[in-house]
Amino acid sequence: MARIAVVAGDGIGPEVISQARKVIDAVLPGVETTDYDLGAARYHRTGEVLPDQVLAELAGHDAILLGAVGDPTVPPGVLERGLLLKLRFAFDQYVNLRPSRLWPGTTSPLAGLKPGEIDLVVVREGTEGLYTGAGGALHRDTPAEVATEESLNTRHGVERVIRDAFARAGRRERRKVTLVHKTNVLTHAGSLWRRAFEAVAAEHPDVETEYQHVDAAAMFLVTRPQRYDVVVTDNLFGDILTDIAAAVTGGIGLAASGCINPERTYPSMFEPVHGSAPDIAGQGVADPAAAVLSAALLLDHLGHPEAAERVSRAVAAELAGRTPGAALRTAEVGDRLAAAAAG
Amino acid sequence: MARIAVVAGDGIGPEVISQARKVIDAVLPGVETTDYDLGAARYHRTGEVLPDQVLAELAGHDAILLGAVGDPTVPPGVLERGLLLKLRFAFDQYVNLRPSRLWPGTTSPLAGLKPGEIDLVVVREGTEGLYTGAGGALHRDTPAEVATEESLNTRHGVERVIRDAFARAGRRERRKVTLVHKTNVLTHAGSLWRRAFEAVAAEHPDVETEYQHVDAAAMFLVTRPQRYDVVVTDNLFGDILTDIAAAVTGGIGLAASGCINPERTYPSMFEPVHGSAPDIAGQGVADPAAAVLSAALLLDHLGHPEAAERVSRAVAAELAGRTPGAALRTAEVGDRLAAAAAG
Ligand SMILES: CC(C)[C@H](C(=O)O)[C@@H](O)C(=O)O
Ligand SMILES: CC(C)[C@H](C(=O)O)[C@@H](O)C(=O)O
Repeated sequence: MARIAVVAGDGIGPEVISQARKVIDAVLPGVETTDYDLGAARYHRTGEVLPDQVLAELAGHDAILLGAVGDPTVPPGVLERGLLLKLRFAFDQYVNLRPSRLWPGTTSPLAGLKPGEIDLVVVREGTEGLYTGAGGALHRDTPAEVATEESLNTRHGVERVIRDAFARAGRRERRKVTLVHKTNVLTHAGSLWRRAFEAVAAEHPDVETEYQHVDAAAMFLVTRPQRYDVVVTDNLFGDILTDIAAAVTGGIGLAASGCINPERTYPSMFEPVHGSAPDIAGQGVADPAAAVLSAALLLDHLGHPEAAERVSRAVAAELAGRTPGAALRTAEVGDRLAAAAAG
Repeated sequence: MARIAVVAGDGIGPEVISQARKVIDAVLPGVETTDYDLGAARYHRTGEVLPDQVLAELAGHDAILLGAVGDPTVPPGVLERGLLLKLRFAFDQYVNLRPSRLWPGTTSPLAGLKPGEIDLVVVREGTEGLYTGAGGALHRDTPAEVATEESLNTRHGVERVIRDAFARAGRRERRKVTLVHKTNVLTHAGSLWRRAFEAVAAEHPDVETEYQHVDAAAMFLVTRPQRYDVVVTDNLFGDILTDIAAAVTGGIGLAASGCINPERTYPSMFEPVHGSAPDIAGQGVADPAAAVLSAALLLDHLGHPEAAERVSRAVAAELAGRTPGAALRTAEVGDRLAAAAAG
């Protein structure tokens, strides 16, 4: 039976993660979960972000379910780099998976778009690019100061994430992969991405392909998001594009994500894209939909696609039944979703 | 009298630039213009992109007005790097100015937004960051291949563009500057940008400031673009954000831009953001609005703010009077704009 590490985290994290657990229990009874206390609260209490011992224990799990970490009192970057990015790199989570759907019952800020019209997934590289920390600074605090950031890209790292994107596209209806980069300016990395893409594409004659510069893709995600099926891109471009995709599908409040090690050599991590929302924490009014959708990604990754599908359907039905703007109770939504997914 | 070099370029470039010239002639009679044949056509004819001799001649002008260069038959990157980026770097055009307004008569793809509600300007750094070409590759076409891109940032380069942003904000009604970066991940460059921003902000107590990560800014440009006044950011983030800003204000068809050397040591360059649109070239149906708005930026830069304002007003009136979807004749629009701006 699957062993899941749960990092409920800060703010609304624990509230929404409770619902995700209910739903997992309902569709896959007997899953073993262990709680790990990480995030702003622990950092304030002990100064620790991710002790080696905890990292080693997490490694023994099949997956990690994370609520949200952070609050305004933690210095920026501490938890992001010390916890989130650390886990992505330590567990070689090279597929950062971010689906965006315009769910029934939700409204896009884009005029005239109807539920169902957007159904895309961004496969963002998660372990390379500008996220490695490479770079430095000289002559700090003088007029001669210079600072660099280095984007590192390997054929190994680029090809494996492109392979994952094509594999996912092959299982979808439209079977289309869009490579997004900036090959006209970032010529060194762009050439590597482009050649790796073409090589993998040649092995998938059944998958339609296209290339777009990141600026054009950012624009088209606003003017015609329907055109995308699977988008594969580097770490930083993926960071930006997935927030646009979330915005046009109703905001990060509904967005789920997975940081995946497809080989399952290491645990993958699943989390709602929203933050800890300290302003509404503890009131039982946070929407658990994104956390529950993240649980669906987790179930799919662990080899339970039917259970995942039931959870997604339950969320779709829940959202479709909502009155826009109406208040909700976190726990009641969780109960409804668990019942619907189990049934 | 001002001396302007005109690079009409390819596709619809010459058509829209003719209208921009008409308008400049109408508001500032006696301007001296010289045509330079650069772009895809010249590249195909002679293999040249930007001969040293031409670069030297361009340097003798007060400004450059550019239509559009490129067509699908030129290998990607040749004209971008050999012409556009080359000019930005050679002429130290460190302020890449990109205003976005939701003009009367135009529709945003965002539901419920009304003309006038978006009025922002992105001050994008134009000579540093990931655009310098720094980087390289090793073991090409082997499984061991690695490719790097380096973002170079200097206190000199960062501070001067931030100063320009604050100066512009000081002349606007809302007086607000948003710094966009990704300081939680790009810590080296992020720290430099942040400290330079704080230093300049301290000299401008009358200007409101805020900081946003680039992913959040990309999202807010979709969900609440009204919140921005002046945005200052690095070269690559600016490339992406300005296309989102253009998208939410009706598309790049109306977007104007300036690559500016504020000290006027070198000529600045003004161009519509749209491309050469080979599909509609030669038919006289291209909208010259973005080219004419670029001419307004040029006039403002050369010290003719009232003339610039008259041109902007003429464009605003023209757009307000249009029937959405109705056909237009490029030359007729140019005639109307010239008459309105002169009057
Ligand atoms: C918190 C931050 C480091 C992170 C990222 O940049 O990847 C976040 O924006 C995300 O998209 O998961
Ligand atoms: C053509 C390209 C090099 C250029 C850029 O990336 O700056 C363009 O996208 C722009 O925004 O002016």
